[in-house]
Amino acid sequence: MTQLESLALRFNHTPQQTALWILDQTLLPLKEEWIRLTTVSETIEAIKALKVRGAPLIGVVAALSLGQSAVKGASLSQLEEEANALYAARPTAVNLMMAMNRMIAGIQLKKTPRALLNIAIELFNEDVTLCESIATNGAELIQSGDNILTHCNTGGLATAGIGTALGVIRQCHSQGKKIHVYVDETRPLLQGARLTTWELKKLDIPYTLITDNTAGHLMQLSKVQEIIVGCDRIAANGDFANKIGTYALAVLAQYHNIPFYVAGPYTTMDWHCANGDQIPIEQRKANEVTGVSGPFGQLSWAAEDSQVFNPAFDVTPAKLVSRWILDCGVFNKTDFQQGKVKQSMQQLAEQV
Amino acid sequence: MTQLESLALRFNHTPQQTALWILDQTLLPLKEEWIRLTTVSETIEAIKALKVRGAPLIGVVAALSLGQSAVKGASLSQLEEEANALYAARPTAVNLMMAMNRMIAGIQLKKTPRALLNIAIELFNEDVTLCESIATNGAELIQSGDNILTHCNTGGLATAGIGTALGVIRQCHSQGKKIHVYVDETRPLLQGARLTTWELKKLDIPYTLITDNTAGHLMQLSKVQEIIVGCDRIAANGDFANKIGTYALAVLAQYHNIPFYVAGPYTTMDWHCANGDQIPIEQRKANEVTGVSGPFGQLSWAAEDSQVFNPAFDVTPAKLVSRWILDCGVFNKTDFQQGKVKQSMQQLAEQV
Repeated sequence: MTQLESLALRFNHTPQQTALWILDQTLLPLKEEWIRLTTVSETIEAIKALKVRGAPLIGVVAALSLGQSAVKGASLSQLEEEANALYAARPTAVNLMMAMNRMIAGIQLKKTPRALLNIAIELFNEDVTLCESIATNGAELIQSGDNILTHCNTGGLATAGIGTALGVIRQCHSQGKKIHVYVDETRPLLQGARLTTWELKKLDIPYTLITDNTAGHLMQLSKVQEIIVGCDRIAANGDFANKIGTYALAVLAQYHNIPFYVAGPYTTMDWHCANGDQIPIEQRKANEVTGVSGPFGQLSWAAEDSQVFNPAFDVTPAKLVSRWILDCGVFNKTDFQQGKVKQSMQQLAEQV
Repeated sequence: MTQLESLALRFNHTPQQTALWILDQTLLPLKEEWIRLTTVSETIEAIKALKVRGAPLIGVVAALSLGQSAVKGASLSQLEEEANALYAARPTAVNLMMAMNRMIAGIQLKKTPRALLNIAIELFNEDVTLCESIATNGAELIQSGDNILTHCNTGGLATAGIGTALGVIRQCHSQGKKIHVYVDETRPLLQGARLTTWELKKLDIPYTLITDNTAGHLMQLSKVQEIIVGCDRIAANGDFANKIGTYALAVLAQYHNIPFYVAGPYTTMDWHCANGDQIPIEQRKANEVTGVSGPFGQLSWAAEDSQVFNPAFDVTPAKLVSRWILDCGVFNKTDFQQGKVKQSMQQLAEQV
């Protein structure tokens, strides 16, 4: 029997039955409702609707969904089709693509269903370990007494492990450092207000919720010692895509001489992407901006038929990043320029 | 008979009856509902609840409410008490204080009720003229084809006239310039999403609604030619307070070499305030950030008992401002440093 469990994901496999469950994140923090994903198309729907979200977690869930499909008897050609459909479910995050590439490689080698499932299980376990390494590496940058600003949600809800940026914060807290977190609400989908507050409350880490508009004011008041965010894709030169609003934080951080850190696993690196200009930005629906919707209700407040521009992500150029906190170490701009990041990752890959 | 009418204010006075009405701005854009303010305490409640808002309009409504109280027979000592209560209804905007000072001066000179009401009417008419001057002055800075980013609401709903920042935009549109407006939704109270879209739609000016998080991304994409905002108080050195989020826009504008303009009438200047540090910042309730409420409904989405920091305003230092668009002209930093702004205002005051 194989059993996997994280904050937002449960997976069981016995010879008799396979079951993949996700915590419906659109219902948080009001309801903790688990939904079962029995087919790949259900998984794609769940990804598009953000029921499952967070770049690393999406990759793991997609792989497990495909593994489930394999052990349930899907043919290799069917599996390859499904992998390609999953691949396209969210265009900005690269972890999903990397996970699918690993699965597709197995399919093309005509691996057994169980062996394909094992790749997915490996991806889950690997993500847990990656989060721990990121947390350990990042915690060294944070002092006791610091006020840390973060954006969106990058915790246990976004990964199979303890998270990326929020994993670093959690690690500091575990180490006994007295830290306090400023949580950007993160419009339009309020992942900060809904998910990060929920996680921090569970972890008993002190936090204060703010509107995204308040972040600059806090920096001006010298109330922020560092900013840590996650990422959906890092280009070869260190530019990275993350939740809309991240770029503005990076500019504000530079203006105020506040360290700006980005945390992510190597699965978020896209070496095929030379720089941020090549990262596709997902555009989402107008009704996310003209109002709000969730388990708490659905409201609309803008003048009817208002035209909306609603990119889900923006790109922060490497020049605005103080440090990249990766599983294989903490890097600076020079490390990227001199190819040290790629080197470290290759060394780590060879060791595996 | 005296009859005053603006987008959000109606006032009638005959020897038989006095009536002050405001458009309840908390209900926009869903409902256009006028409410009558019969007493000063009703006016104070309406100001605190943001049923009437916008620094210039608050001053005018408060004065008319006090004028109404006078013609309805309130004693001079009662009026002075009421003026002081109104004075404190919102701490950041200075227009209210200036309007009350003018009324109090009249009360202390023991003017007749009708003479006191006339001061209030004068304030209304003056604000209309001030808006026109601001619009004319500011329009010269805008080119046809420009995309203008604005924050909060600074239009007919915020003044007795055509508005300050939005008045400039309206003037450009009237002049036949092809402009397009990016409207920050302006969390937490969504004055951009609710009010500015409503006004722009009525005026048939093309606009696109964005989350506050998207402003930086747009600047990065070179899609913004200038930013124009209003103000709640300008200090003697040119620092100014405005809706939370303005400061971040100013930093982003500087980083991207985008002109950043602030528009306001002389009634927003506070010469007693040496610099921005001395402007008090109103702190508002947590529930504005943990959810949203309005005629469209009331929702809450953050983890329960989340601690919140909710300043209504922030302060933008003069060094980040490209031009101050005032009724008496367009000024730059040097003009402030050399006392030219004060001089221009004094000259204008002497002419009156």
